Amino acid sequence: MTNSHDIEVYVRFCETDAIGHVNNTSHFLYFEEARTKFFRMIHPNRQSSSSFILASIKCDYIEQAYAGQVLKVSTNVLYIGTKSFTIRHRLIASDSNKIIAEAEAVTVCFDFKNQKTIPLNRELRESLEEYMV
Amino acid sequence: MTNSHDIEVYVRFCETDAIGHVNNTSHFLYFEEARTKFFRMIHPNRQSSSSFILASIKCDYIEQAYAGQVLKVSTNVLYIGTKSFTIRHRLIASDSNKIIAEAEAVTVCFDFKNQKTIPLNRELRESLEEYMV
Amino acid sequence: MTNSHDIEVYVRFCETDAIGHVNNTSHFLYFEEARTKFFRMIHPNRQSSSSFILASIKCDYIEQAYAGQVLKVSTNVLYIGTKSFTIRHRLIASDSNKIIAEAEAVTVCFDFKNQKTIPLNRELRESLEEYMV
Amino acid sequence: MTNSHDIEVYVRFCETDAIGHVNNTSHFLYFEEARTKFFRMIHPNRQSSSSFILASIKCDYIEQAYAGQVLKVSTNVLYIGTKSFTIRHRLIASDSNKIIAEAEAVTVCFDFKNQKTIPLNRELRESLEEYMV
Repeated sequence: MTNSHDIEVYVRFCETDAIGHVNNTSHFLYFEEARTKFFRMIHPNRQSSSSFILASIKCDYIEQAYAGQVLKVSTNVLYIGTKSFTIRHRLIASDSNKIIAEAEAVTVCFDFKNQKTIPLNRELRESLEEYMV
Repeated sequence: MTNSHDIEVYVRFCETDAIGHVNNTSHFLYFEEARTKFFRMIHPNRQSSSSFILASIKCDYIEQAYAGQVLKVSTNVLYIGTKSFTIRHRLIASDSNKIIAEAEAVTVCFDFKNQKTIPLNRELRESLEEYMV
Repeated sequence: MTNSHDIEVYVRFCETDAIGHVNNTSHFLYFEEARTKFFRMIHPNRQSSSSFILASIKCDYIEQAYAGQVLKVSTNVLYIGTKSFTIRHRLIASDSNKIIAEAEAVTVCFDFKNQKTIPLNRELRESLEEYMV
Repeated sequence: MTNSHDIEVYVRFCETDAIGHVNNTSHFLYFEEARTKFFRMIHPNRQSSSSFILASIKCDYIEQAYAGQVLKVSTNVLYIGTKSFTIRHRLIASDSNKIIAEAEAVTVCFDFKNQKTIPLNRELRESLEEYMV
């Protein structure tokens, strides 16, 4: 059985647009909140000198969402490489369970001190594996 | 020779984050501004009943950007389908010409009145072709 | 004893800026969330034709806040007029109880159908009175 | 005759909300852009150790604004104190010259190195005086 890391977000009125639904740029706010909470959980002792860099993110928009809704952001790991890994965020309406959007984010391990990419260490790899789809 | 649709944006201080650079969510603000201006230009008589829906967007982060910078968003068309088309946004530092990020956005033609996807008409297709890479 | 309407918000990384703290524009996101939830509670049957308009808002910045913090937004009523009322939001660090910021928002009752300000009805006035400081 | 410091901003679609107009939180994005550009102009040699802190900001909402509009933000100085000064931002529709909103921002001079407020120096005072209403 697969673990997922789930959080809930509330759709703010300012996150909608004049069409009446959640604006396409707001989804990334929810994904970032999910990602930072997921990273804090799997890598609590992260040092400031080594960290994660977002290399790319793709969002597929599936259903509309609206102000006042509570959405679940469900995070899993899709792929673990040598120096990077790919996570998936599913944005889901908490009441209907409909999928609103789905994102894939490629994350790279980076040593800020020496300004270069670094391999995932074993501890991180094992934590990520628990969330593999 | 290829046309591109170019705009300039100013990086606001509130668009940066505590790492000191432009936050990953802010790039989508710039892409949306470029896209709406591009659509207004190629399709000035767009009726409210038929419109464009963003189906997906992917951003590759290449270089960091900073508060106070002026960035160019250069928009082109990558692909024209029957009911959808794909555009590319390049985010470029206006002074150094370095590419900061690159995005691909799949856009679908939609009839809001009848709530269904519709084919691109010839006029729109011809406008898009001028911006094909 | 005074009632207050309290919610909690999580400070997103994208709500900080390059100085390292929560950007001055982000406080208004938290106040809007608190205000819409407060209005939904005190006026659940609000019709779309009559609504509340924000006439002005003032924020005093007292302490800095940081990414990952949980903040309480505590809402009260300061003043009830004929056609408007003033609410106060206190933004408070949930762990230390330090006040981060304090805002006053003047809200006007508005009839969108007839495009004019309207008096507060008795039911609304009584609901607001319960939250008077 | 009074100088004012004027910039133009373009209203992004994502800055509107489901009511159809510019969301109340977006005005502060425009004011921040105007303020940082104003500060850069009057105080180009600002050292990182001494800087300006926003103590409070108040916005009066006067007219609605809409996606795609170009707005002028006109900045002046209302008051110069010993360690702080107050600036006024007027948000004006560029086509009709209607005032959309008006803000007052109290700014404090701060020495980050020694973590205390500091008096305005003469050079800054003289620059500010040129923009007094």
